[in-house]
Amino acid sequence: MAKSKFERLPGFRDFPPEELGAIKHIFDAWRTVSNRYGFTEYGGPPLELLDLYVEKSGPEIVNQLYNFADKGQREVSLRPEMTPSLARILAGRHRAMPKPIRWFSIPQLFRYERQQKGRLREHFQWNVDIVGEEGVNADAEVLAVGLDGLRELGLTHKDIVARVSDRKLMAEMFLVVGVLPEFISQVFSIIDKMERAKVDHSMDRLCSEANLKREIAEKIWEICHENELENFQKEFKKHKPVIERLENLDRYMETLNAMGLGSYVEFDAKIVRGLAYYTGIVFEIFDRDGALRAICGGGRYDHLLELVGGDSIPAVGFGMGDVVIGELLSIKNLNRTESDKVDIFIVILEENQRPLALKMAHQKRAEGLSVLYSLKSDSLRKQLEMASKAGAHQAIILAPKELEKNLILVKDLQNGEQEEVRLDEFI
Amino acid sequence: MAKSKFERLPGFRDFPPEELGAIKHIFDAWRTVSNRYGFTEYGGPPLELLDLYVEKSGPEIVNQLYNFADKGQREVSLRPEMTPSLARILAGRHRAMPKPIRWFSIPQLFRYERQQKGRLREHFQWNVDIVGEEGVNADAEVLAVGLDGLRELGLTHKDIVARVSDRKLMAEMFLVVGVLPEFISQVFSIIDKMERAKVDHSMDRLCSEANLKREIAEKIWEICHENELENFQKEFKKHKPVIERLENLDRYMETLNAMGLGSYVEFDAKIVRGLAYYTGIVFEIFDRDGALRAICGGGRYDHLLELVGGDSIPAVGFGMGDVVIGELLSIKNLNRTESDKVDIFIVILEENQRPLALKMAHQKRAEGLSVLYSLKSDSLRKQLEMASKAGAHQAIILAPKELEKNLILVKDLQNGEQEEVRLDEFI
Repeated sequence: MAKSKFERLPGFRDFPPEELGAIKHIFDAWRTVSNRYGFTEYGGPPLELLDLYVEKSGPEIVNQLYNFADKGQREVSLRPEMTPSLARILAGRHRAMPKPIRWFSIPQLFRYERQQKGRLREHFQWNVDIVGEEGVNADAEVLAVGLDGLRELGLTHKDIVARVSDRKLMAEMFLVVGVLPEFISQVFSIIDKMERAKVDHSMDRLCSEANLKREIAEKIWEICHENELENFQKEFKKHKPVIERLENLDRYMETLNAMGLGSYVEFDAKIVRGLAYYTGIVFEIFDRDGALRAICGGGRYDHLLELVGGDSIPAVGFGMGDVVIGELLSIKNLNRTESDKVDIFIVILEENQRPLALKMAHQKRAEGLSVLYSLKSDSLRKQLEMASKAGAHQAIILAPKELEKNLILVKDLQNGEQEEVRLDEFI
Repeated sequence: MAKSKFERLPGFRDFPPEELGAIKHIFDAWRTVSNRYGFTEYGGPPLELLDLYVEKSGPEIVNQLYNFADKGQREVSLRPEMTPSLARILAGRHRAMPKPIRWFSIPQLFRYERQQKGRLREHFQWNVDIVGEEGVNADAEVLAVGLDGLRELGLTHKDIVARVSDRKLMAEMFLVVGVLPEFISQVFSIIDKMERAKVDHSMDRLCSEANLKREIAEKIWEICHENELENFQKEFKKHKPVIERLENLDRYMETLNAMGLGSYVEFDAKIVRGLAYYTGIVFEIFDRDGALRAICGGGRYDHLLELVGGDSIPAVGFGMGDVVIGELLSIKNLNRTESDKVDIFIVILEENQRPLALKMAHQKRAEGLSVLYSLKSDSLRKQLEMASKAGAHQAIILAPKELEKNLILVKDLQNGEQEEVRLDEFI
């Protein structure tokens, strides 16, 4: 087969109609559910100043970016995530807006990283954020949106689970057991890698990198593997900051229960999210079988707007990529393609009937129907074949003898039935 | 106002909901009309190998690109147009596809160029192409799609006009009047700039750059300003290649007439399109008042797939940007924002009713309605204010006294009417 001499870049996808249809099916679910929850869509530029990302994530992020100097000598980058753009956009306008702000977006994001299953160099990500509300109801609302976005695609609590924790709760407990405040974030980043690392390796790191005695490291290990919040309640009952966070997390769980989503949510102390900017409850959504990477990650981040130079304002949100979902939908046989339907195929048997066909086509299209016809002279058989390949519902046959009697033939392409219809009734 | 310390890049746009709504209104019209004509949507990567664009447009294009070397030392560029990606994608797969291929796309495109009105450094462009059909019916079909996309937005023949010409017709006439074949494309590129240049300047360029005698240059000027095809028919009646192209152009016009679009189409010999790859009928759509840049440009290009290394296959298509249309819609007071509606706002008067509210909300959302409620404890007045700001149709008030009698209050926020409804009838 003759192929182009130009290859697609590695890690990027083409979207011929059938594949675009599959991704549109996912986007449709995301948009539908966002609207049900009263979120409105926004967008931003795919290219931003490099510093916007360095400010949020530190200079090491640059290794993973599509960054370059533009022709005006500006250091710029394709966006690796949407939240910095959101923070930049809101910093200039949120004061004039009623709170809370409920915004969502479906940007394409870019990272230059080693390719692996479920990780390309681009993907689309559903971003949902509530800005300007600090209470736990906003946290629950955001997770509910994410879960319903997946339920809309046909996934159930048998397929997916949200694993939830609270960085503030964990931090308070770590302080009680003897971690120094300045090492808390280091402990988080070791826990974040814990599930994929060997036990000994994590313990060694806790001792050396977070400056902990072996017994404190072991206590942290224990805390991270405790699944019952009640046990924390007993163990830390004298420590008010811990108890307050436990009550907060209880309200969160109760809220999700009241929404009927309880069976989707589990406490998992190990979910702390690697990124330093999360400040409260955090969550990740996984497939129950654990076959795939996380489907979604999010949580509360109350200082991000400040970081880009704006006001201090609370925020909670998540990002959900299209690639892992696509894999999960395939496994569960739930992938669909939104295909565009063709209503009518007009069969032209003699070229002098083409003007009539064009008039009919344009009229039916103006009525909102999808209409096709052959662009060149073809046999009846060939044209009916084209109609069927295009998935048309109906063929309108302009046959010379019938047209003399002011009749057209209407053929139902599903059941093959054919009837004569008066032309002047049709147009 | 506290603004972010990070500015948006010059020439790029943010899309807060009201502005995204305006652009979605345009996209919706484009998608609706594409579907009516039986076109299916495809997509491609925003980043491609730089050579893909250099091959099509020559090395001078690089000055206008967002190009760079990626971390794998590949010379890459943000896409300045979609057609090279289309050619690349089709080169590898078109043989297995029924012809003609009817594809459309709405990519965001990027050019590093001096900013001016109606020209940013990014825009969205509706690309519509028919590939695999060489007949003039395909040419007419493509222009009809473009015109209907604009009509769908409320524009009429009083607002817009398609100016149409045929590069092959023009080339044949130029050969007759004495232009050497090797200078034809040079003549086209001078004509393309003619409308914006002084007469003398264009004449001088024709003489010097296209190696023409003054009288031939004048003849070309005359041809370019002839509006009546019949006059060409008389003048070139002995030149069969010219007459054939005139007949072809006639069929094109007749086809558009049969579709009821005749009032939108005018012959204009000066429309030759700057780009060398067009091979037949070409067109541009303008606002009738001539206040703005071209809204749309397109035509037949029969060799592009070959150029990227694929088979030789005929093609016709257009690109229509969102920016000039947005300006025209504003001038004509036709700009709209697709705003998402909120159906129900649930008013919670006591926090112990929140679980009931959440259950109701989740149920109504599952039924497809858009439902909001306050995420924190607020007064009735404040909550009704939020409901009205969100544009909700209905407020459901959970009032303690009524709830005891199993009743809720349903308030119509348009007319203010309020009625009691049995709770068990509502959920």
